[in-house]
Amino acid sequence: MFSNRITQLFNIEYPIIQAGMVWTSGWRLASAVSNAGALGIIGAGSMEPQLLDEHIKKCKAATNKPFGVNVPLLYAGVEKQMEVIVSNGVEIVITSAGNPASFTPFLKQQGIKVMHVVSSSRFAKKAESCGCDAVVAEGFEAGGHNGREETTTMVLLPLVCESVQIPVIAAGGIATGRQMLAAMVLGAEGVQMGSRFAVSMEASSHPDFKNAIINSHEGDTMLTLKEITPVRLIKNDFYSEIIAAEKNRATVDELKALLGKGRAKRGMFGGDIKNGELEIGQVSALIRKIMPAEEIIKHTWLEFNEALEKPLK
Amino acid sequence: MFSNRITQLFNIEYPIIQAGMVWTSGWRLASAVSNAGALGIIGAGSMEPQLLDEHIKKCKAATNKPFGVNVPLLYAGVEKQMEVIVSNGVEIVITSAGNPASFTPFLKQQGIKVMHVVSSSRFAKKAESCGCDAVVAEGFEAGGHNGREETTTMVLLPLVCESVQIPVIAAGGIATGRQMLAAMVLGAEGVQMGSRFAVSMEASSHPDFKNAIINSHEGDTMLTLKEITPVRLIKNDFYSEIIAAEKNRATVDELKALLGKGRAKRGMFGGDIKNGELEIGQVSALIRKIMPAEEIIKHTWLEFNEALEKPLK
Repeated sequence: MFSNRITQLFNIEYPIIQAGMVWTSGWRLASAVSNAGALGIIGAGSMEPQLLDEHIKKCKAATNKPFGVNVPLLYAGVEKQMEVIVSNGVEIVITSAGNPASFTPFLKQQGIKVMHVVSSSRFAKKAESCGCDAVVAEGFEAGGHNGREETTTMVLLPLVCESVQIPVIAAGGIATGRQMLAAMVLGAEGVQMGSRFAVSMEASSHPDFKNAIINSHEGDTMLTLKEITPVRLIKNDFYSEIIAAEKNRATVDELKALLGKGRAKRGMFGGDIKNGELEIGQVSALIRKIMPAEEIIKHTWLEFNEALEKPLK
Repeated sequence: MFSNRITQLFNIEYPIIQAGMVWTSGWRLASAVSNAGALGIIGAGSMEPQLLDEHIKKCKAATNKPFGVNVPLLYAGVEKQMEVIVSNGVEIVITSAGNPASFTPFLKQQGIKVMHVVSSSRFAKKAESCGCDAVVAEGFEAGGHNGREETTTMVLLPLVCESVQIPVIAAGGIATGRQMLAAMVLGAEGVQMGSRFAVSMEASSHPDFKNAIINSHEGDTMLTLKEITPVRLIKNDFYSEIIAAEKNRATVDELKALLGKGRAKRGMFGGDIKNGELEIGQVSALIRKIMPAEEIIKHTWLEFNEALEKPLK
């Protein structure tokens, strides 16, 4: 039985955390992951408070194992989401895309375990000083919103691990057991996988989006919209429009207008592969199959242990 | 005694290769690295044929261990450099920044061992089909010239390793023994370190450049000049000029004019920290000390073995 600070903190079997992802990780995915011995996360970023409430209640009904909620702090209505989280007795929260000082003390007062997603050692230290129980260190290769320093997982992990005493969870570029071991060799005590679970059977994302992920190759994702909030997405017609607008010196407001509202929903949930926003990590080039969440976890854990047994080629 | 395909191929003690770096890796560094049991490389990119001839001869006089020459294929005068390499009986060549088909067959005919630097599995396959003995897979975090796909070492290595049968050497983001093990867990059989050796005592780069490296932090390097040839460098006044020009929709010709001739020499060799081109990797944020090359190798190897003994925290 594997045990370290992350499995102990969350009372889980494997130090694997499923990333909270907009339009992708609802109660079905989160409960499937938790039931399989890893930590399932409901992605609240794309949910109105009432919908979040529904997902939490359904998740509780579907598993008696620990699960958490991810709350990106960049959207409006975060307070309402936090109320729903507290009133439902959710035990684990991951905050991201914002200041850990804004909600960590409040959540800790409620007895909730809090992790914050960081892309630099400076923010890792800040998260620790705010009382976070762990940090998720997310490299440049990760999908979705990302840091401006563009520090990759290989470089970021040693920097974050030497900066804080709390356990570090690696994110960005991890979809296999060997990558999991590599991240843990660099000092992480657990991994967060997003892209890998985005193509699970239980993910609520559109089948066409899942197929776009498994059909993507090297160079097919790019960190873009750096003048608004950097986001990694699959290159498609929408991406080409952004690039053309940037070449034409579009202002930030013009870029925001181009992005518009509901682009991510349109792409990831609606299946508009050409004109939607398809947030996914670089590691999608390594992902080739839609599998049940449980199988993903078992497969990753098996490969991790094989790699631990024989780390060198 | 450690042994794998890379130590056997080059007849070296440790699977550590010192990257060939313009204005940085002459005969002093290359011979010091080779004498310490790793593979020293003369960086021919900044050398006229006559100077390269001199460096090779001095390197031969300074070590009886194997060493190699790195030839970036993007500069003029490559044929002349190859003549010098062959006439001096150099046994190992690393080509980069170009097409492996252009020189690999010729070099192989001379009995020279050839590696090619790639940033994608497509080029790795091409290098293998051209007869290369190994490939160096270099991630987005690496210093100097870099691929357009921006694939990071964490994602690139598994992709390249599954694509070719020849051994793979990892480059980009590696400066410590733990990073070395992480890269080898991902399938590499050796590592190439650039930034770490750029701050060795024996590196011919300017002391002010070495100090700029050890004083740099997260986010202080950036991949830039993507419209010409992407290059990672330390942000300074020259970098700000590039960004300003790009914002003003500078043409490729205008950017080339801004870059001008001799920018890299001015920064890395001349010590013009403000207005020179300072090519270095992201991992410089982890490098804090100027050390002799031998000490770097011993330290890295010790840490690698400690990590291998106890891979998890």
